Amino acid sequence: DRPLTVIAGPCQLESRDHALMIGEAMQKACAAVGAGYVFKASYDKANRTSLKGKRGLGMDEGLEVLAAVKSELGVPVLTDIHSEAQCAPVAEVVDIMQIPAFLCRQTDLLLAAGKTGAVINIKKGQFLAPWDMANVASKVASTGNDRILLTERGVSFGYNTLVADMRSLPEMMKTGYPVVMDATHSVQQPGGLGGASGGQREFAPVMARAAVSLGISAVFIETHEDPDNSPSDGPNMIHLDQMPALVSRLMEFDKIAKADPIRL
Amino acid sequence: DRPLTVIAGPCQLESRDHALMIGEAMQKACAAVGAGYVFKASYDKANRTSLKGKRGLGMDEGLEVLAAVKSELGVPVLTDIHSEAQCAPVAEVVDIMQIPAFLCRQTDLLLAAGKTGAVINIKKGQFLAPWDMANVASKVASTGNDRILLTERGVSFGYNTLVADMRSLPEMMKTGYPVVMDATHSVQQPGGLGGASGGQREFAPVMARAAVSLGISAVFIETHEDPDNSPSDGPNMIHLDQMPALVSRLMEFDKIAKADPIRL
Amino acid sequence: DRPLTVIAGPCQLESRDHALMIGEAMQKACAAVGAGYVFKASYDKANRTSLKGKRGLGMDEGLEVLAAVKSELGVPVLTDIHSEAQCAPVAEVVDIMQIPAFLCRQTDLLLAAGKTGAVINIKKGQFLAPWDMANVASKVASTGNDRILLTERGVSFGYNTLVADMRSLPEMMKTGYPVVMDATHSVQQPGGLGGASGGQREFAPVMARAAVSLGISAVFIETHEDPDNSPSDGPNMIHLDQMPALVSRLMEFDKIAKADPIRL
Amino acid sequence: DRPLTVIAGPCQLESRDHALMIGEAMQKACAAVGAGYVFKASYDKANRTSLKGKRGLGMDEGLEVLAAVKSELGVPVLTDIHSEAQCAPVAEVVDIMQIPAFLCRQTDLLLAAGKTGAVINIKKGQFLAPWDMANVASKVASTGNDRILLTERGVSFGYNTLVADMRSLPEMMKTGYPVVMDATHSVQQPGGLGGASGGQREFAPVMARAAVSLGISAVFIETHEDPDNSPSDGPNMIHLDQMPALVSRLMEFDKIAKADPIRL
Repeated sequence: DRPLTVIAGPCQLESRDHALMIGEAMQKACAAVGAGYVFKASYDKANRTSLKGKRGLGMDEGLEVLAAVKSELGVPVLTDIHSEAQCAPVAEVVDIMQIPAFLCRQTDLLLAAGKTGAVINIKKGQFLAPWDMANVASKVASTGNDRILLTERGVSFGYNTLVADMRSLPEMMKTGYPVVMDATHSVQQPGGLGGASGGQREFAPVMARAAVSLGISAVFIETHEDPDNSPSDGPNMIHLDQMPALVSRLMEFDKIAKADPIRL
Repeated sequence: DRPLTVIAGPCQLESRDHALMIGEAMQKACAAVGAGYVFKASYDKANRTSLKGKRGLGMDEGLEVLAAVKSELGVPVLTDIHSEAQCAPVAEVVDIMQIPAFLCRQTDLLLAAGKTGAVINIKKGQFLAPWDMANVASKVASTGNDRILLTERGVSFGYNTLVADMRSLPEMMKTGYPVVMDATHSVQQPGGLGGASGGQREFAPVMARAAVSLGISAVFIETHEDPDNSPSDGPNMIHLDQMPALVSRLMEFDKIAKADPIRL
Repeated sequence: DRPLTVIAGPCQLESRDHALMIGEAMQKACAAVGAGYVFKASYDKANRTSLKGKRGLGMDEGLEVLAAVKSELGVPVLTDIHSEAQCAPVAEVVDIMQIPAFLCRQTDLLLAAGKTGAVINIKKGQFLAPWDMANVASKVASTGNDRILLTERGVSFGYNTLVADMRSLPEMMKTGYPVVMDATHSVQQPGGLGGASGGQREFAPVMARAAVSLGISAVFIETHEDPDNSPSDGPNMIHLDQMPALVSRLMEFDKIAKADPIRL
Repeated sequence: DRPLTVIAGPCQLESRDHALMIGEAMQKACAAVGAGYVFKASYDKANRTSLKGKRGLGMDEGLEVLAAVKSELGVPVLTDIHSEAQCAPVAEVVDIMQIPAFLCRQTDLLLAAGKTGAVINIKKGQFLAPWDMANVASKVASTGNDRILLTERGVSFGYNTLVADMRSLPEMMKTGYPVVMDATHSVQQPGGLGGASGGQREFAPVMARAAVSLGISAVFIETHEDPDNSPSDGPNMIHLDQMPALVSRLMEFDKIAKADPIRL
């Protein structure tokens, strides 16, 4: 079992400079403590709560920025896709293509993503049980691509609330695919602000520490230098300047966890 | 407040003859008791639990069948769409285009559907609160199309289970759009059979009666002459030969309810 | 199947005059439309959210008031009990003893209540599935007393929220015991006001109509002439002056429902 | 922040020898790695799913056994109480009196327990939000006794299922009272076996590790030398011979967590 990988970056791409600034800070923070690092950001927020929410740079400009992060920093990059048509062009740039949680049952999208040969990170739908993800992963694997990651990001719990069930992590590990904990979306409050999702940033480290103590492969954390003024997911992103301490702490838990990972 | 409309048909299109048989039976059952009728069936099941589930006739053949139902029976038809590209061709045939629950937050799909000018029936996502649907409907309405229906089909309740919250019906009525109760999907057990969704057919009339007693505009019911051998959603579809009695009973409740509909 | 019974009264006993005033108003409203009537009120609110909540008249004074309601109005009375010791004295006065939802698994309380020979109304715990109530009822029935009622009052749904699952009513009817819908506690928001429970009074008629349309035996409704100034459960009680119209409407639904009650 | 305390023992007392055997094994396991230890067992299972479930030794014999464990092993003992009358006699023997989750809102029981001066461990009801526990603890504290522990043991999540929300631990820490994670009841499946509760023993270490990584005060674990043949809670108890390794691992996580405990 390899050391923890940290998948981190801003919720959405804002500019080349912004992406490089965050990517570089995270790269350093991870390298300092022996964690793997993957840069994450979205070029399009395709399912905002309200039509008024900012959607982002768009695919063309977004892929240019992601390519820059990859080449200038030398780190792998991850972004999410929203239609079959986006799969091929995105796969030319990014290392990991992510299936959004709402779309994790859309067969054609899973097949198109799988066929690119990229690593596919599938977010578990807020409406799914962890054991349902075996069928979801099979759709991707049917293309001959078994470079699959499965991500927990909370499950519906009453209205406008998610809960992260720690059982889902070892349950999804049963598939044999690496399992990721999305610590920031798990503390989202979907639609909780009326025209936008709320969030409980203060609980993101709770989710990260709890999950890492089980021996997961990676933790997914959205971060920003000024979350309260970011264009999306501000309420749940972690301040960039708190990330080095958090990553360092997580690596301490990871060492103990990896010596005896939970396996069902 | 007009009498109840019944939106009913098989989960997926199987053949022209099959669609006409079910459509004709339902048309008669509804006419006999003064209920409105809309034929419903899907040409593609785009998000089956497992890759092995049958997907259906496909768009081209499916639209031919729907056109036949419309012209031969003279009833409006409803089907669901899965991508922006499908909106225009489908809108040429069908009267009501339906946004699947999993896709109800996908902004581009909502906008493309709205732009066709067709009536748009939006199913409430299993991960949404009823008040969240005002933002969803606004996306469609932003296109200038306010011919919108909102449908309750159950909300996530633990794993592999939905619960239908009757409060959601008057809550969604606050938007001013007609509200529909999907009586058969509300009793689905998503992923409940491992490789397929289970269902509790026996509870579908429970959902229909409870909802109609509140004064809703329409009830949505999937029906089949042999549910246990149907290609999808068999466990929750109602036997076709039980539909006339059910529709007749619902109309009795509807008359009382419409004399004093629940309005918040 | 007999006509609907309405179990109604203030959340807690306030005084003899107050109880008689409400009891008389409800008795008239029910008699006018052929509904059965049972007076309901509590002498002790033993599990208030906060220590500051008013607990009520106490058992001795409360039983005197209940006896007065029974003798002066000639209606059966219902109250809830909280310990084994209360069972015998309470059973001397009341017709129906109610087991509170939080206590519905306390074996000794169920046995002591059953042994009195009174009718026992068991509220389903907010933490139980409807099928779990068969085991609960068996505890009472083991005393030789099968005069049992089972009441739905909502199930936990996320935090500070309940949802009323209409499936629970026919599910509990499988036991053969009469089933009651508690329309006002089902719309409680437990702890929702911080130091007290909130509630959504406007949804209580939704619950009542939906449940009655299934063919249940009784509906339970707390009512008050001035809910906003009542000592407990104000946010979910229905105004007394709205009760005659509600009961009248429910009887219309009941007639249709009883002609063809849902039976699984 | 002191090192982790382990509250552990069999679900119910079976005999003096059995209690001493388990208590001694746990005492050694905890001492070996510097963990605190409290012996836990019940003398009465007062809310079994079914009347057929074994209830235990009863209070008199149970207290004798608990006294023996305390005097012979020199460890503090914890047991749960079910009525006001039990408080005084039980407090003469045990160090920590536990309020069962179903009873955590019963004001009189909380007051009677508080008045004994014993440490009071309150289990959070399966129907409560973590922030609701501040009101619950205030009832005990109103007696002048602020030696209070608050325990997470899962919250209702659909039917026959609990989920442990890791946010509840730091949320309850806000009260200032020590917080305990009940790792074995959190993986119960209430009523899941029809006539008894089921459980997922394999997930208990998941709960324990996740919670300890946040910096909690104590972990509560039921254990038995032969869970499958124990009189209650067999499906979720951990095998006694697996406890030393688990406690040892938990202490490694505890050391890192206590260096930087989560505090909101």
